[in-house]
Amino acid sequence: MNTSHSSDNFFKHRINAERLWQSLIEMARIGATEKGGCNRPAASDLDRQGRDLFVKWCVAAGCNVTVDAFGNLFARRPGRDNSLPAICTGSHLDTQPTGGKFDGVFGVLAGVEVLRTLHEHNITTQAPIEVSVWTNEEGSRFQPAMQGSGVYSGRFQLDEELDKRDINGARLGDELAKIGYLGTEKVGGRNIGRFYETHIEQGPILEDENKLIGVVRLGQGIRWYDVEITGRESHAGSTPMHLRADALAASANIVCEIEALALRSQPGAVATTGFMQVFPNSRNTIPGSVKFSVDLRNPDPDILAGMDQEFQSYCVQLAEQRSLNIDVDHFWYFAPVTFDNSDAVQTAAKNLGYSHMDIYAGAGHDACYMADLVPTAMIFTPCKGGISHNEAESTTIEQCRAGCNVLLHAMLADAQVV
Amino acid sequence: MNTSHSSDNFFKHRINAERLWQSLIEMARIGATEKGGCNRPAASDLDRQGRDLFVKWCVAAGCNVTVDAFGNLFARRPGRDNSLPAICTGSHLDTQPTGGKFDGVFGVLAGVEVLRTLHEHNITTQAPIEVSVWTNEEGSRFQPAMQGSGVYSGRFQLDEELDKRDINGARLGDELAKIGYLGTEKVGGRNIGRFYETHIEQGPILEDENKLIGVVRLGQGIRWYDVEITGRESHAGSTPMHLRADALAASANIVCEIEALALRSQPGAVATTGFMQVFPNSRNTIPGSVKFSVDLRNPDPDILAGMDQEFQSYCVQLAEQRSLNIDVDHFWYFAPVTFDNSDAVQTAAKNLGYSHMDIYAGAGHDACYMADLVPTAMIFTPCKGGISHNEAESTTIEQCRAGCNVLLHAMLADAQVV
Repeated sequence: MNTSHSSDNFFKHRINAERLWQSLIEMARIGATEKGGCNRPAASDLDRQGRDLFVKWCVAAGCNVTVDAFGNLFARRPGRDNSLPAICTGSHLDTQPTGGKFDGVFGVLAGVEVLRTLHEHNITTQAPIEVSVWTNEEGSRFQPAMQGSGVYSGRFQLDEELDKRDINGARLGDELAKIGYLGTEKVGGRNIGRFYETHIEQGPILEDENKLIGVVRLGQGIRWYDVEITGRESHAGSTPMHLRADALAASANIVCEIEALALRSQPGAVATTGFMQVFPNSRNTIPGSVKFSVDLRNPDPDILAGMDQEFQSYCVQLAEQRSLNIDVDHFWYFAPVTFDNSDAVQTAAKNLGYSHMDIYAGAGHDACYMADLVPTAMIFTPCKGGISHNEAESTTIEQCRAGCNVLLHAMLADAQVV
Repeated sequence: MNTSHSSDNFFKHRINAERLWQSLIEMARIGATEKGGCNRPAASDLDRQGRDLFVKWCVAAGCNVTVDAFGNLFARRPGRDNSLPAICTGSHLDTQPTGGKFDGVFGVLAGVEVLRTLHEHNITTQAPIEVSVWTNEEGSRFQPAMQGSGVYSGRFQLDEELDKRDINGARLGDELAKIGYLGTEKVGGRNIGRFYETHIEQGPILEDENKLIGVVRLGQGIRWYDVEITGRESHAGSTPMHLRADALAASANIVCEIEALALRSQPGAVATTGFMQVFPNSRNTIPGSVKFSVDLRNPDPDILAGMDQEFQSYCVQLAEQRSLNIDVDHFWYFAPVTFDNSDAVQTAAKNLGYSHMDIYAGAGHDACYMADLVPTAMIFTPCKGGISHNEAESTTIEQCRAGCNVLLHAMLADAQVV
């Protein structure tokens, strides 16, 4: 390409961390919880308010914004040559029911801050720049997680995912239409060249190691299950122990077992039951049925496959032992992902003089699916105590500044400033 | 007393089992569930419909019905000498959320059938006869269980119990007023001499032993707890196992432990968690808090006290081990009850030629509180497979006939027919 750029010029630009922080605080008012967190469920009216704010900010920074048929948003800042693949970043605006202010939102608003920085300094990039907001990353109101990027990348079928329902039976496609964010643009196939996602670590490692930037080399593997146990309801007082088929006692055994399974599958293994519903859920009745989630993760795909096998065998054994039915639906497997553009993050962090280390992502992220399509990288920044998916989730303006500057510099390098 | 009765005359009367069965079926239509059970929550509009039907039937059988200030109903059939203490029977009309057609209802309608039998044969008893319906026996919508008889007997304070709220925050006193069954009569202190309660066994013993009548000698001891565990919400993917404070994993340990505790506290011990709520209940978040019920029972008060101690120590240890908070509220203790009028049941069963055996009650019953006040007895009849608190709860017309005839004869003996 017949472009050149001065390295001096390139390195002089910095994002405005105070402005970024102010936007994080403003976004956090939408769905703010009493304890200082956020509850902004995917495709809810609060999600609409968050999206509206994002659109307003991007338009003010010189972008046009389009919406695809799964509600994913793309704010595009033109480059000098708009036939070049765009250099992209993005994340999500939906939160857990008792989520924090930064998970996802930081990645989106770091992108917005990059747009604003380019805008105020009149920087024209060679390639266009894009910031995306992916629908339902959390997988909390609708399942699975990372749904918008999953449909975009072709991992999931559009129609199937639009038909997903929340616990009250509301259909995702209808909910997106209701808030005005079911667009017409084809999902997938945009002309893009790179994808970046900035995110708080959601774990304690950077803080422990006193590093500002995590260069994410790997996204760990994830297996998600829905388990349903069917026993027999009967009276809690007059049914002798040996005549019970107690669905909750059986469920408790499984919850204990997956914890033990994670402990014996180290390093890096985790196992969680985050969701459980008990029927009829009355103090005086032995539960006849219980539904719950199981989440197994490991950075090593072979060890994760072994965990899957041990977990499923345990359920088969337990069902036989206790004469009840255990139905295990292994509805989602996410193979470990290598982020093959992570050197760009390392270079930017080094040039900016930020302490950094290699790390892997314990959580799933939209970047994990984007890695199917283009060279992808993630930038992690520390969060207090490693706490996330919690209203107490916390980070600092200086940590946000570092992450966003790394994003700016990595994207500018890719987009070849002239 | 200057009364006499012919023993021949006395023994010739029998209840009408077909009529009783028809009434059971009619009552079961109110709150009928798809699977053939009943869902008639205490103080709900369905409870009102059930009470209305009871009142209609009792008035047709020559009774007047009064309502006390806790919603307990008393259908009174005058005797020859109305200054004598009344001979009473009763039970409840509320059900579990997925309850059966017979638990409680059989005891009430057996009483109604006694009234009808006396009415159609123009039998005048010396003492008055009463049939009561006690408010909220199940303890499912409002807690504790056996609430109406508990307030009546003075175990609970009227105002405190009227202030109890259901899971949606509705106040019991308001709900009773709304359905028109918050009466004005003082709770407690009626002039009564004996109390009987007929009930399906809700356990498998009579069926196993092929007996028609259980002479209930004892009601076992019950301890009820509310447990609340507070851990720390955090991300299911990026929080290493050793940094978790998982409230559900801790709860699962307790559910497993109480099962083990019951198994090592035999004979007769049972332990159940019937209710559990997980927060925030999202697949992707380690639960930060869990609330659940614990129910421990034993016929022997000393062994039950030992179970209480072991359970509570286990919770203290576990809280320390896992660095989370476990709050155990032991809000109800019900000491084992001796039914000191049970010989009357044995005599009636014997005179009627029904197979019978001594048994104890695994569940709590209104009769357990009435035993504080007057000589009390319970009559058990078999139920299919011992299953109760279940929509499949089942019994036969012949089993109902036997139980109701025993009730009639025991009450007539007490009330000294002339």
